[in-house]
Order: sequence, then C-alpha cells, then structure tokens
Amino acid sequence: MEYPQESFAATTFTTGSFWARRREVVRKQTLRHQLKMLKDTGRYDAFKLKWHPSYSDPPTVYPVPNHQFWDSDVAKWIEGACYLLMDSFDSEIDAAVKEMVQMIQGAQQADGYLNIHYTVVEPGKRFTNLRDMHELYNAGHLIEAALAHHLYYKNDELLSPILKYVDLFVATFGDQDGQLLGYPGHPEIELALLRLYKVTGNPEHLKLAKFFIEERGNHQGGKGKRHYYDVEAEARGENEHELPTCYPAARSYWYQQAHKPIAEQETIEGHSVRAMYLLTAVADLVRIHQPTSETGAKFLPALHRLWSNMIEQKSYVTGGIGAIKKWEGFGIDYFLPHGTDEGGCYAETCAAIGVMMLAERLLRLELNSQYADIMELCMYNAVLTGMSLDGKAFTYVNHLASSNEDLSERYEWFECACCPPNVTRTLGFLGGYFWTHTTSHKRAVVNVHMYTSATLNLKVSDSTVTVTQKTEWPWNGDVEFETCTDGPPVELELRLRIPSWATSWEIAPRPDNLKIANGYLHLSAEWLREHSKFRLSCPMKPRFVRPNPLTMQPVAYVTRGPIVYCVEDVDHPWEQQHFKRTILDLNASLKEELRSEPDSYIAIVAENGSKGELDTSAWDGQIVAEPKDEVSNGSKNLTFIPYYLRANRGGRGQMRVGLRVL
Amino acid sequence: MEYPQESFAATTFTTGSFWARRREVVRKQTLRHQLKMLKDTGRYDAFKLKWHPSYSDPPTVYPVPNHQFWDSDVAKWIEGACYLLMDSFDSEIDAAVKEMVQMIQGAQQADGYLNIHYTVVEPGKRFTNLRDMHELYNAGHLIEAALAHHLYYKNDELLSPILKYVDLFVATFGDQDGQLLGYPGHPEIELALLRLYKVTGNPEHLKLAKFFIEERGNHQGGKGKRHYYDVEAEARGENEHELPTCYPAARSYWYQQAHKPIAEQETIEGHSVRAMYLLTAVADLVRIHQPTSETGAKFLPALHRLWSNMIEQKSYVTGGIGAIKKWEGFGIDYFLPHGTDEGGCYAETCAAIGVMMLAERLLRLELNSQYADIMELCMYNAVLTGMSLDGKAFTYVNHLASSNEDLSERYEWFECACCPPNVTRTLGFLGGYFWTHTTSHKRAVVNVHMYTSATLNLKVSDSTVTVTQKTEWPWNGDVEFETCTDGPPVELELRLRIPSWATSWEIAPRPDNLKIANGYLHLSAEWLREHSKFRLSCPMKPRFVRPNPLTMQPVAYVTRGPIVYCVEDVDHPWEQQHFKRTILDLNASLKEELRSEPDSYIAIVAENGSKGELDTSAWDGQIVAEPKDEVSNGSKNLTFIPYYLRANRGGRGQMRVGLRVL
Repeated sequence: MEYPQESFAATTFTTGSFWARRREVVRKQTLRHQLKMLKDTGRYDAFKLKWHPSYSDPPTVYPVPNHQFWDSDVAKWIEGACYLLMDSFDSEIDAAVKEMVQMIQGAQQADGYLNIHYTVVEPGKRFTNLRDMHELYNAGHLIEAALAHHLYYKNDELLSPILKYVDLFVATFGDQDGQLLGYPGHPEIELALLRLYKVTGNPEHLKLAKFFIEERGNHQGGKGKRHYYDVEAEARGENEHELPTCYPAARSYWYQQAHKPIAEQETIEGHSVRAMYLLTAVADLVRIHQPTSETGAKFLPALHRLWSNMIEQKSYVTGGIGAIKKWEGFGIDYFLPHGTDEGGCYAETCAAIGVMMLAERLLRLELNSQYADIMELCMYNAVLTGMSLDGKAFTYVNHLASSNEDLSERYEWFECACCPPNVTRTLGFLGGYFWTHTTSHKRAVVNVHMYTSATLNLKVSDSTVTVTQKTEWPWNGDVEFETCTDGPPVELELRLRIPSWATSWEIAPRPDNLKIANGYLHLSAEWLREHSKFRLSCPMKPRFVRPNPLTMQPVAYVTRGPIVYCVEDVDHPWEQQHFKRTILDLNASLKEELRSEPDSYIAIVAENGSKGELDTSAWDGQIVAEPKDEVSNGSKNLTFIPYYLRANRGGRGQMRVGLRVL
Repeated sequence: MEYPQESFAATTFTTGSFWARRREVVRKQTLRHQLKMLKDTGRYDAFKLKWHPSYSDPPTVYPVPNHQFWDSDVAKWIEGACYLLMDSFDSEIDAAVKEMVQMIQGAQQADGYLNIHYTVVEPGKRFTNLRDMHELYNAGHLIEAALAHHLYYKNDELLSPILKYVDLFVATFGDQDGQLLGYPGHPEIELALLRLYKVTGNPEHLKLAKFFIEERGNHQGGKGKRHYYDVEAEARGENEHELPTCYPAARSYWYQQAHKPIAEQETIEGHSVRAMYLLTAVADLVRIHQPTSETGAKFLPALHRLWSNMIEQKSYVTGGIGAIKKWEGFGIDYFLPHGTDEGGCYAETCAAIGVMMLAERLLRLELNSQYADIMELCMYNAVLTGMSLDGKAFTYVNHLASSNEDLSERYEWFECACCPPNVTRTLGFLGGYFWTHTTSHKRAVVNVHMYTSATLNLKVSDSTVTVTQKTEWPWNGDVEFETCTDGPPVELELRLRIPSWATSWEIAPRPDNLKIANGYLHLSAEWLREHSKFRLSCPMKPRFVRPNPLTMQPVAYVTRGPIVYCVEDVDHPWEQQHFKRTILDLNASLKEELRSEPDSYIAIVAENGSKGELDTSAWDGQIVAEPKDEVSNGSKNLTFIPYYLRANRGGRGQMRVGLRVL
C-alpha cells in the first residue's frame, strides 16, 4: 500500500522543467502568500481559541459558519509546507509550521477533542450536525497534516495529539451501544484514516474508516431504522423546510452521496468534491482488502460505474466536473453548459484535485491508461488553471466561458478557502502522481503515468534504481528515458502510458514485440537491460475536438497533447461578448507559435479561424425563424492559449474554451 | 373598455368548424367531467365549510396547503360554465352552478370574508401570508366567476356576496393608517378588480387594483420602510431559511415579480402564470388611464420590454413559456431546453393561457400583429395541447420532448388543478380573442386577429353589423369574408391580420391601394361598401423553422401555418429513445396528408426525413472526440402530427417537437 503523499519523495523534478518551475513558485511565493492570508484573516491564530469578530457573521452558505473550515485551511497549508520543505529548508515556513503545531496542541481538549468552532463558538454541540458541519472533514485534514508533518519532521508533535483525537472518534462512532451511527456530510476523514492506518497499523483506524464508508446512505441505520441525518435533524429540533442553502429540497442527501449506500449508487450525484474524496477512500478500502475480497466485490462495480458516468456524461473537456453552482456539483447526464449565462458551469478546482486523487487510486487498482489520461488532463487544465503564474492568485470556480456575471479572473483568497491550499499541497506531492511502482526482492516495476523531466530514485534491496525522463512535455512529446542501477543488479520493468490523444507514437529503439496492455507499453527487464536509454515519442499537434453531441454544445475545442486551449480578449480586442457569437472554422489551419512571455508556452494561431459572428437578426422579435446563413462580419484570426494560462496577461476577463461551430 | 370575457358573446362559431367542435366537447364532456372531479375530490362541497380529510395532508409544495386553491377551481368552473351556458342551456350544469353559488353565499362570514382555508383550517390567520397563500388569487377568480354569472344569469346572487368581500379588501388594503400595505403573491385579483370596475364603476375598485400594482416590489413600503413580504414574514415569526419549495434562496421575491417595482423590471422573471396575470392587469390599468397618461408613461415601457424579453429570449416554439420546474417559470435568457432529461422545460398550460390574455390586452393598446401572432400560436399549440380530444384529460406541464421521467400524457385531474378549468373558461369565451371592435355612431371598426368559420354580430346604433368568416383554418389559409348590415347603413372598417408565418398572401378582389400597418391590412368603409364579399388567402405550407441559435438547441421544427408539429412513437414503432438521437434531414420534402382519425387534421410526412440516428460511439469512455460522421442506421420516414394532437392516439408516450439537425 502506497500513497502519492509518500511516494512523491522518490521523485526529483529536473530544475528548470515545467513542474519544477511551478513547484518553485509555490515554494517561494505561494506558501508565503497563503501564510500571510492565514494570518490576515484570523485563521493562523484561531487555534488559540480566542473569539474572532467574524465568528458573529451570518453564514454565507447556511447553515455552515464561514469559519467552519478554518481548521482545514491551516491543516492543508501545514501539509503542503511539509512536502515542500523536503525540497529545501525554509526557516520562515518551518517556524510557522512549528508555531501552528504548538497552537493546535494547545487547542486540544482533555478528551482529545480538537475543533475551533465547537470549542469556541458552540461548545457542547459537537457531533450534533454531521450532515452540514465539517468537524470530521477538518479532522481528516488534520490527520493528513499530521502524516505529512511526521514524514518531514520525523517526530510526533502533531501526530500525537491527532491520534488522541482519533481515539475519541473511535470511541464515539460505530455500531456499538452508546456510539453514534453517523458519518460525515463532507467525506475526507475516511481517506485520511486509511492513510493513517498504514502508518499506525491500528485496526481501529481501518475499522472506523470502513464503518463511515459502509454506513453511509443507510436508511435503516441503528435502532430507529432511519437515516442518520433524519435522526440527527430531529434531535436538533430542525424544521424540515429549513433547508441548507445547497439543498434544492428537503432531505437532498444525494448532495452528500448519502441518498443510498455507495455500492447501490447508479450515477454520480451531488457535491463533486465530496464525491471524489469519498470514492478515493472507497478505492483505498478496496485496495487494502484486495479487489478480490468481499469488500472489493461490493465496491469495485460501483467505482467503475460512477467513474464511467462521470467521464462519459458529466465531465468538461478540461477534466473539470460539476455544472451546478447551487450544490457545487453534478447535474443530470450531459448537462454541461459552459458559462453562467448559458445555464451554469462550476468545475471547482478542489473537485479536479479530487479527480486526480481518484484516478491515481484507480490506477493502483487497475493499470489502465483511461485513468491516467484523465489525471493528466485535470493536472494541466482543471487544477493548474486554479493558480496564477505568480502563485498568488487563485480560482475556486473554473468556467469554460466567462460571462458578465463571472469574468475569468483569480483572487488572492476566498472566504471559503479550500482551493488555494489544496493546490499548494497537490503541487507539493505532485511527483507521486507521475509514476507508481512496486518493488520486491531485486525486482521493480515502474508504471510511468505521465511525462516530465524528472528522476525517480528507488531503493530496491541493496540497490538504488534510477529512472530518468528528459522531455519538453507538455510542449513536445519526445521523452528520453534512461535507467540505471547503483548496486547489485535489479530486474527493472517499465510500463509507459500511451496517451489516448496520441494519434501516433513510437519508441526508439523499437522492441521486436510491442506488448501493450490497457494503454501501457510494457518494457521487459530483459529489453531494458540492453536498452538503458530509449526514446518515447508521442507527437503533439493541435487538433479540434468536440464534446459529446448529447451535451447540446455546438462547439469545438482546440487541444494539443494534454493541453486544452482557450481564447482571451487580450489577443482579440474586437471581442465584446465573451466570444459567444464567434464562429469557429473547422477548416482553418492551426499554426503553433512558441512564446516566452509571460512564461514559455505554445500558442496556436488560426488564420481566419473565425468565420465571423453569429448573426441572430432573423430572430429579432420572433421565437423561431427559417434557416439562413447565420454568420456576418467576416473572418478574423484567432489566437488560442492554454486554458491554465488564462487571466495572466491582462485584458477584460473575456475568455472561452469552446467556440461555436455551425 | 371591453374585455374578451364579454365581447365573446358577439361571436358565433359556425357549427362543425374547428373551434365549434372543440367548444362543443367542452360543453358536453369537459364541464361534466370536471364537475365530477370537483365532487369526487371534495371541492364541490368545500364551501359548506366542513372539515375534509385532505386538509390534514402535508403540503406538496410547502408552505401552500394542497386545498389552498380549491376556491379558485370552483370559481373557474362556474365562470366557464356560465360562458358555455350562453351557447345552449344545460339543466345539469345550471343546477350545479346554482347550488355552488348557494354554498358560496353560505360560506361568507359576517364581515364579508369568504375563503375556505382561512375559515375552516386556519381561522384567525387571514391576510397573514400574502406572499405564499392564495386568498387574494382565489378572490380574484371569485370576482371573475361573479362577473360571468352576472352576465349569464343577469342577477346578483353571486356578484352581491363578492362585492361585499371586495368591500372588505377595500377597507383592509391600502396606504391609509391601519391598512395593510400588502399585495398578493399570486396576481389575479388585480385584473379581476379592473374588470369589476367596468361593471360597478366604483372608483374604489380601480383604486385598489392600482394600489396592488403600484405597491408591488416596493422595498420602502410603509412605516418600516421595508419590503412588505419581509414585514409579514417577521410578523409570522418565520425563519428566513424556512424556504417555500419554489424559492431557490431566501427572499426570492422575483418568483412573485415583487423583487422591484414593475416599472423598473428589466427582464421577465419568476413564476410564469403570475407574470402573465400581473402584466395583463398592468395593460388594463394603462388602457383605463390611457397610454398617454402618467400611468401609461410609467408602465407601457415595462410592458413592451418584458414582452420582448419573453418572446425573444424566453419562449418556446409553441408559445409555451417557463423552462424551470422549481419555480414554474422563466430561466435565464435563451435557456430553453426541451425536456426533463435535457435540463428542463415547463410551459404550463395556464401560463400559455396567460400569454393569450396579455397578448389580447396589448393588441387593444396597440394594434400590432406581433401580439396576435403569439396569441394564435399559443391558442393552437400551448393551450390546446392542454386538453385531450375527448375533453376529459389534461396537461399541466407541456414538455417539447418526452423523457423517461415525464412521458407525453394527460391526466384526468391534478392535486393543484389550476389548468383544467382554466382551459374550460378560456374555450368558453374564446370568441373574444378572434376579433376586437370599436363602435361609435353609425361606425364600426373590426380588427380581425384570427381566422375561423364564425360570425360576429355587432349592434351599431340602430343597426346590426354582421361579419362572417368561412374557412378551413388552421388547415387551409383561404378565408371567405362577408359583411352585411341589418338596418340603416353603418360605416364598417376592417383590419385583417397578415400572419407573420404567411410568406405570401393575397386578397381578392384586390383593393387598388393596399394599406398595411403593423401587420394589419386595412379595408376602408368605402371599399367594403362595394365589396361585401372578398377572400383573404394566406397559403399554408409545411416548413422547417429553427430556434434562436443562442438557445443552443441544435434542432429544427416542422410548422404549417399556425400549427407546430411533433413526432410520436405511435407512428414510429422503431423509436425507443424519445427521438433524442433522430437526425432530421432539412432537405427532405414535406408532404401533406389529410387525415380524419381521431379528428380531421393534416399530417406531414417526410420521406427519409430522418438521416439516421446520432452515433456517439466515438465518445465511449471519453469526454471529447474528434469530429466525424455522427450518423448511423440509415434513413427513415418521419410522420409529423400537430403538437396539440399528441397523446390522443395511443403509443408509449414518446414524443418530440424539435428534431436534431447536424
């Protein structure tokens, strides 16, 4: 059992490479910027358990107090900081982590309880609203922070109080007399407990995670034989018409993926971050018990079903998920409008981070490039778009098209600040996503999911195996590989993902027999012994792709390799309507243009790429009109830039990914 | 000042004609069927003020008790019955009206109050929740019933208690000390009071209607300088998170068109029936005060603006309005999906009845065929589709495409039964929509908005002017006109609407100078003196029309004259997916086929009209794919039938109006 939050340490991104540069920005700029934000907003000091004026603010998203997530904001920052400190020591960051850990220690109650809101604002009300509140979610992030802290500092200063907190959960939740049959409205603690279990080996940690997962959505829970959230709401004396803001109707438990047991869920529903965190934990549970176990047989079909439903019916071209703002989540099948003025679009940064998490877990259950394709897609587009080039501005929602209500822009922080530190920690352990490996006696198998200039160092028996990639990815699809072993020989096998977007590819030298399984090219130990250097080439060229016609989106996208492109007004000063009426010419040739400002990237220029503007004058004063030529104003050039680069070069915030085709 | 509910009496539909036959079904079948429903469900006896078991049922649409509208169901039936009794006496219907009127009389409280719910179920709570409850809406329908009763029975048995009830309103509502500054959540009483004012001439009736209209949406009302619905909710001790089911968020007063004063509303929002009833009253108020008055200057721009927004951005091809089920109303501009599995569609029957009402009022303010075009569109499609051919089954929601969740089918009644008796009363006074007229001394102007075989008899001075139309409309666009005057000569002028769908038209004999203004052909008294018979021809041919491309609906519709067509599975047994993947060939020729079963109509057959089925296999397991030929399975014939005829010929409930084009 391995997790990317540990395995990343074996990866070194080559200095100056795409991801090394992004991670350097996070290390040098983002951590400091976010630390300042934590301090300025009161989060940094919140574990001192003093009253903060904002605690009196009415909830923006009823009934959840705005400061409810503060614990997790701090925890995610600590987690990310610990990963990045492993790159290079930073005394300011180190000191902040240490002070925060001290404050967390000091905030713990005698019985182990450790939560800002329920200690300072509503003492005595702990565990009375698992459905809406985020106690267990916060605890999950504290566990993850403690694991990262333990990994870097190699002490128990954070892990120890957290273990005491977990003991309280173990005593509190379960199906024994006197225990609560509840589970968190926002999953997170499940995956954290499973990771913790690996470190502690404590079967109670596994058992509690399994309980939370298996009890979820049970309408016959406990003595009352009722849904726990009903029991709990009744105990709170809640009026069923007092709806949480995110609920379209009373008892919308699908919002929390708690409308039925996970194994029985047919479609992916509700809040998209919750869904991803939950399924990540389910995948981990299956892995711990083995896919062939009873637990595997129970949950694996649901994992496959829900993943397929998400990818085929509920995902955007960027890998972003969630069309509906109200519940920050999934709409009905194929309902994927691109912007607020077209019916919605959400694609929260945290949700795409969750897709990466789930994809990585599924890859560990079944090496299949479909998962890695999506993981790469999300990383370059739906996640990376969440942070500015300078590392100091972020998105929460990632529309595919701007609108007057929602321009394409980033913010230095959010009242609900889940996304910024989530990007930080994800970039912190990013190396863990690029490859997975299994080692045994004098033997290693490395599955290469994604390509970048980086080195993997593996301890195998008494040797160190090194796998090096050298590439200009994502701009150039040539990857030079080199493997070597320091010490006694090791049988090294490699499996290289062939991206689904690669319409052709080659490997040089070319093995006599190409073995490809589930989208991975298998390179045997025998072949690698003779070929310590080789090159994989996946030529990247710009192309037009289209969404499933059942989405009713009459658009095409420009992509190149794993990168999804967009147009911005800064390159098209004539544009005034968010490119809503710009008609793409699918016959236009797409020319690559290497640029170096504000960062190096390949832009794509389509000469006369726009046929003109959609002309709807035939419909003036009418509901319908007879078909006619609907284009006017003549052709224009279009310049496409990577979606993740949007809102970094000025302009008026007009942006669109999918352009209209006729 | 004239209203269609009075002027209809001058029209006689020719026996055997399209509308004469529909009205006969209503007279002979629908009235009886609905009377039985009123009796079976408890509504008939409800004015006896006894407890009905259903009064204990929890509200289906919180917080509105399910029986809240019963008063109006009874009132609309009485209203419709009185109109239809004028066609021919029916002792059973007459007896039922009389008994119901007696029960209504008996239900009136000493102070004039007259409402089932607040007398039986929640006495003492009257007028405490104008926002959600339907007291004033019910009262409006009672006023309209009383006016119809008065028209037919020529006595005050219903009008008299209703006038006493209105006196109570006059005393209760207004801006004087001790009065309530409130107005109804569901408009209706406004238009009823204005019609009542015409009969009573009582300035208090006009004043009260004007108060309700002008106070609406005032955020600075009364002493508290707050929105009345806030004041009222606070007085009820209501938690702001206890949301009415129809509200997506607290204080969603746009649902009731009360988010801002009517004159300031930029876009048409919220519950579509409420919007139409409200604007109908506003148009009447403008007419009463004259468009050139201060009232006219205040409201006329809003009427034009909201009408245009509705037609250009928020209407379906059938004239149906409202895409959103939750609030039974308008979505954002151009958000017009066609079925539940595509993102929604509502198009409530009552809302289309409301569009007809508003269009007729606007025609009286400004003779412009754009209003009559929409009125005709709604009548043949969005309203007529609301009732089965046998007059005993109804729709509430009118999707343009069926889905597994919402098949194309009709029901004998509804818990919230607004639509069935609304169709009844609308067909009762339907003649009032076909033409409007003004008469003065020896002079008459008749504006002919719609065509059918019918005769208009007008008393002008000491003469009777008769205008007769003879036509097979809506199947044939030839209309034979004949005018005559019984008595001393009358200067008769005619204005004939040229439908916007008529790509060509002619009149024979042809006047030397054709005067056309705002879509109406003006025939002078001079010309008519010499041409008492003439023929207008508006050739009807099937054609493909398309929605505004900004709706993102890649479909085309088949229409012919005013009729919108659909496909049903009963003609296409191969269809299994609600025609969602059926690709229309816009080059297919459309052949007319005269049919006589289950009624006479023109079907349209497109040989090889379907190119095949949308093939999305390229997207299996993928979010996007490269463009390719997306059609498979070969061409098939398509048979289109009028949308209003759907769900009358068996089948599995699969139906679609707009077919996909590539």
